[in-house]
Amino acid sequence: MSEQTNWWFFEDFIPGAVIELGQRNVTEEEILRFATEFDPQSFHIDHERAKDSIFGGVIASGWHTCSMIMRMVVDGFLARSSSMGSPGVDEIRWIVPVKPGDVLSVRAETLSRHASVSKPDRGVVYTLWTAENQRGEVVCAIKGMGMFGRRPH
Amino acid sequence: MSEQTNWWFFEDFIPGAVIELGQRNVTEEEILRFATEFDPQSFHIDHERAKDSIFGGVIASGWHTCSMIMRMVVDGFLARSSSMGSPGVDEIRWIVPVKPGDVLSVRAETLSRHASVSKPDRGVVYTLWTAENQRGEVVCAIKGMGMFGRRPH
Repeated sequence: MSEQTNWWFFEDFIPGAVIELGQRNVTEEEILRFATEFDPQSFHIDHERAKDSIFGGVIASGWHTCSMIMRMVVDGFLARSSSMGSPGVDEIRWIVPVKPGDVLSVRAETLSRHASVSKPDRGVVYTLWTAENQRGEVVCAIKGMGMFGRRPH
Repeated sequence: MSEQTNWWFFEDFIPGAVIELGQRNVTEEEILRFATEFDPQSFHIDHERAKDSIFGGVIASGWHTCSMIMRMVVDGFLARSSSMGSPGVDEIRWIVPVKPGDVLSVRAETLSRHASVSKPDRGVVYTLWTAENQRGEVVCAIKGMGMFGRRPH
């Protein structure tokens, strides 16, 4: 378990603390590839029709934006944590369209945490993940939950 | 606009009405591929470590499950609708793990709809999307919103 010395356990998520997760470039190729597989609406995959849409051009699927944020959370700390999965998400807001060439800055804030009464080896952490674009606009906000193992004694 | 004769407009979403969206097989290849790109936690991508997790084997990323459901919604009606994107989701619940070999049956229920006062050409439809596995267990429930253009007069 020596590799777990620097792991994140339930106790390490401090309400109010913010974890900066760095930046990610959003490419047109990736927008089209994700949307072609999972969300082939015209304003995600078709340049010409996207131009005529209210968005004025191709935008990323909201699920793609969430998935990109997820990857940054996993790389930032979740892959080195006692994560036991997630019961769900309480709110997603897709606030500003994500477009090719955007650079997203992602952060995770711990909102609260609740140790399980029935299962003393774990607890739920409530978090707010946000992604800002290069203009400082929050493009997406996700209020979610994660189940984490408690630090072994 | 003749191709739009069978399109779904705001007015076509009737509160209480359910749209059955068919079935989708979940393959291990797809679970690993999605998670490797977007959610590389060990219980999504690593057979051995997943066996030792609380899940007892590899499970799909929750974002992957949402994305698979999204694709069925797009194929079912959204690609032939006046969809103007979505402001967000009010709740996701990942209730039962999704595993390789699962067959998901997806349905969309219209919960309510609200014509925009400020923009009379559109309105928001509130929906509940659910995916059931081959044992009749609801594995995922998504309460979301969609903006739709109103039917032209």
